[in-house]
Amino acid sequence: MTRRTAHISPVQLNGHSLIGGEPVSAGEEVFCAVNPATGEDLLPTYHTVGAASIKRAGELAAETFATYGRSTGAQRAVFLRGIAAEIEEVGDILLECFTLESGLPRGRAEGERARTCDQLRMFADLVAAGTWCRPVIDPALPERKPQPRPELRSMLRPIGPVAVFGPANFPLAFGVAGGDTASALAAGCPVIVKAHSSHPCTSEIVGHAVVEAARRCGLPPGVFALLFGGGRKVGQALVRHPAVRGVGFTGSKVAGRELFDLCANRPVPIPFFGELSSINPVCLLPGALAARPSVIATSLAASVTLGCGQFCTNPGLVLYIPGGREAEEFVTVLTRQLAMVPAAPMLNAATRRSYAEGLERTGRVTGVETLLCAGTETGGPVRPALFRCPATVFRQQSVLHEEIFGPATLLVTCRDMAEMVETVGVMEGQLTATVHQAGADLSCATDLLALLEQRVGRLIFDGYPTGVEVCPAMVHSGPWPASTDSRFTSVGPGGILRWVRPICWQNAPAAALPGELGPAASA
Amino acid sequence: MTRRTAHISPVQLNGHSLIGGEPVSAGEEVFCAVNPATGEDLLPTYHTVGAASIKRAGELAAETFATYGRSTGAQRAVFLRGIAAEIEEVGDILLECFTLESGLPRGRAEGERARTCDQLRMFADLVAAGTWCRPVIDPALPERKPQPRPELRSMLRPIGPVAVFGPANFPLAFGVAGGDTASALAAGCPVIVKAHSSHPCTSEIVGHAVVEAARRCGLPPGVFALLFGGGRKVGQALVRHPAVRGVGFTGSKVAGRELFDLCANRPVPIPFFGELSSINPVCLLPGALAARPSVIATSLAASVTLGCGQFCTNPGLVLYIPGGREAEEFVTVLTRQLAMVPAAPMLNAATRRSYAEGLERTGRVTGVETLLCAGTETGGPVRPALFRCPATVFRQQSVLHEEIFGPATLLVTCRDMAEMVETVGVMEGQLTATVHQAGADLSCATDLLALLEQRVGRLIFDGYPTGVEVCPAMVHSGPWPASTDSRFTSVGPGGILRWVRPICWQNAPAAALPGELGPAASA
Repeated sequence: MTRRTAHISPVQLNGHSLIGGEPVSAGEEVFCAVNPATGEDLLPTYHTVGAASIKRAGELAAETFATYGRSTGAQRAVFLRGIAAEIEEVGDILLECFTLESGLPRGRAEGERARTCDQLRMFADLVAAGTWCRPVIDPALPERKPQPRPELRSMLRPIGPVAVFGPANFPLAFGVAGGDTASALAAGCPVIVKAHSSHPCTSEIVGHAVVEAARRCGLPPGVFALLFGGGRKVGQALVRHPAVRGVGFTGSKVAGRELFDLCANRPVPIPFFGELSSINPVCLLPGALAARPSVIATSLAASVTLGCGQFCTNPGLVLYIPGGREAEEFVTVLTRQLAMVPAAPMLNAATRRSYAEGLERTGRVTGVETLLCAGTETGGPVRPALFRCPATVFRQQSVLHEEIFGPATLLVTCRDMAEMVETVGVMEGQLTATVHQAGADLSCATDLLALLEQRVGRLIFDGYPTGVEVCPAMVHSGPWPASTDSRFTSVGPGGILRWVRPICWQNAPAAALPGELGPAASA
Repeated sequence: MTRRTAHISPVQLNGHSLIGGEPVSAGEEVFCAVNPATGEDLLPTYHTVGAASIKRAGELAAETFATYGRSTGAQRAVFLRGIAAEIEEVGDILLECFTLESGLPRGRAEGERARTCDQLRMFADLVAAGTWCRPVIDPALPERKPQPRPELRSMLRPIGPVAVFGPANFPLAFGVAGGDTASALAAGCPVIVKAHSSHPCTSEIVGHAVVEAARRCGLPPGVFALLFGGGRKVGQALVRHPAVRGVGFTGSKVAGRELFDLCANRPVPIPFFGELSSINPVCLLPGALAARPSVIATSLAASVTLGCGQFCTNPGLVLYIPGGREAEEFVTVLTRQLAMVPAAPMLNAATRRSYAEGLERTGRVTGVETLLCAGTETGGPVRPALFRCPATVFRQQSVLHEEIFGPATLLVTCRDMAEMVETVGVMEGQLTATVHQAGADLSCATDLLALLEQRVGRLIFDGYPTGVEVCPAMVHSGPWPASTDSRFTSVGPGGILRWVRPICWQNAPAAALPGELGPAASA
């Protein structure tokens, strides 16, 4: 079988991992990206990094941590702004790689680039300002009885080298210089990124931007490394490296659990921040459904199909109480709106296959009615799908609780509010839940809201879960399996808290204190 | 063999676990405390709780969380203050149980009771004030382009039922109503305590105090349960219970790792906060050693032997550069001071045995010199021990890095500062490290301080690690194995952060917001 191939900017890209600021030659094992819109292989081929190089990347990161971990917030801010500037300077070739490798439209590429650079600058501002590290000073109490109290000062300090695994669906904003990397570098942690194999060219371009920014700032090149690998073994070796002190991951439940287990089973376990799976239930309360069935249906269809449904916050489940004319209208409009959405390519063949399997798996369940499903032939662009089942069926069939990554959603019909509550009660952890309400709805929804709160990181009212704001109040995490550690958000400035721990200095001479806790801090 | 026994207050104590506010009858399996000073069994016997009762305790806690998790800070403050008052009201019998079961002196019992009640009131004040939960409000930006921003509000909310395992060495302050329980209840989490088998009577008395305080506050009795069990199976069943969402543990490295692994390997993993092992290195820099050898030796001996050395912050390792007259004086005075400390009973037979084994293990290592060791005969009170070895031996023999729980310390002689740095570089994570410095010492200690900082939660200057202040700047944790999660302190108000996660409300009507985020919060 011959495959068509296309070269992406062969002059700039070399297909090798970046360690110590340089491309490293690697063995014979290679892979390449595939244009999901055309099926063409995209060149150059990428070389899977070897075990010795992974080891070296970890050692360099540990070595660099001794200095980078003690750099000032102002120094790190310059670095982060430098990365953003380098990324912007690359220009159109980055956007072209993004669209070729992901099948996502140009506008999305531009939006993600802007978001990536905004995040880098947000973390730059945060660490330049300095208060993020929560300095606390308890003055000495020399007269206290029965014992005097010594002076105690504490603040947050970086944990050490961090490994980052970006997902297929955000080549830039959660990629090589995405939120995980930006927040870890901001905290003072060297970063080793395992690039997602769906978009190696995009990853390499951004990798060079980070390397160049580090060079311009005079930082040791061990502050950043980018690893390529076609299978799982590169990532597994990376999280096992003794120098690695924390991991950021966005991806599937299976791959995430595997890495989580590796982290927990190390001789010295390390924190693993994974964002794994979420079906983001939407509860349509009776008043809202009666008041605006068509508006909700239209906006919901847009949310389900945004980015071909390839968002972690995609609304994959809609609970409502059928019976009235408006409920009928809601379903009719939703079906019609979804049917009108043009077919779109998915991110890669695996995602495409998994979507087809998800549709088949769901449609096969006894009691599930297929309202819209354009078939699941191999390859090519995909269309939205819509299913419906009674809440009893949903509660009994755990397969319906699994995420279908793509533009599909499942309507779950509840007899009444009590059954809606009962149904929410059997759900796993979620990134988000959404409630549409009007009139007196909320007065009957106390139990529902309490249960939803226990299951989510973000509770949305009269809106849609897609669209994750980057701001201080954002919580992008949730109980397992939405995330592996619901105590930390991966979006917004709070993301930096994943990479730090508090340290206390007792009775320390001024010369031994970090700047943030020095004499000026107590003034 | 007949054993002597003594009854502790048989009228009040019934030897059963407390679930749903009531003693539960249990099976045949029983154990009892032993007076470590006399070897006498202490009655009543305690019944190991059965699997069905553990299951019920978890279910009650989950049920209670629905309401208790949504109580106000003011309500929980009343409960916490009520517990403190009930504990104080018990009076002398509590102090008697404490001393009989632990072998610790009366003054220590009084101090711990005061610390326990102070902690309860500190958390009461914290949650009554309300700002601890970090409310954040990002106002809507309706005019923003290309998309308006919805309003987002977030705050910290409780994670759910928490299991607490207290240690042998703090029957009150880390016990049934100790820091873990107080912080979890303050956060809004129901608590299930597995009592330490060394002090069941002390535990039962405090358990009744918590139950009574809950009753007086009109709280559902599922808010608290106390489980007794002689082996490990009660604890294992507890951390496996699906309702349990977090665990606080203080104890040995082996038992802690076992529970950590159980938590990580659950279908839904949960956070495990364990404090396991620390040898708390003390670095004597040349200037300090020259300036005050005798003072340091005398105070160090007091720190090593405080509470018969049974503190997690006990200084088990002292690094110094020998050669001068002052270094000789330091060792002479330290040996003499330690030799003068009277023998004291250890907490229980297992601790006594483990101390004897630790001394034997250490003394056997080639290159280790025994400066003081009064023998390791079975049973009875123990005496301090002092060992010395060159830093090369310490670096090569990982057995010397293991904690000896008890009044022993190991002097490690370093050729120079470079070797001291090299030696610190091979150490595991620690709760604390201590540096004694004078004159120009610090100017030569930059590398040492940087390395120590990477390995500890608290860095002490010119003091001693025992004595853990309960205050906002305190960090009582450290890299593994000092603690299993160095991002959270278990002492001080920050302990509450272990039991919460952030939740975000997007575009929420005022009626759906918790009080802390309601309209008043935005004013």
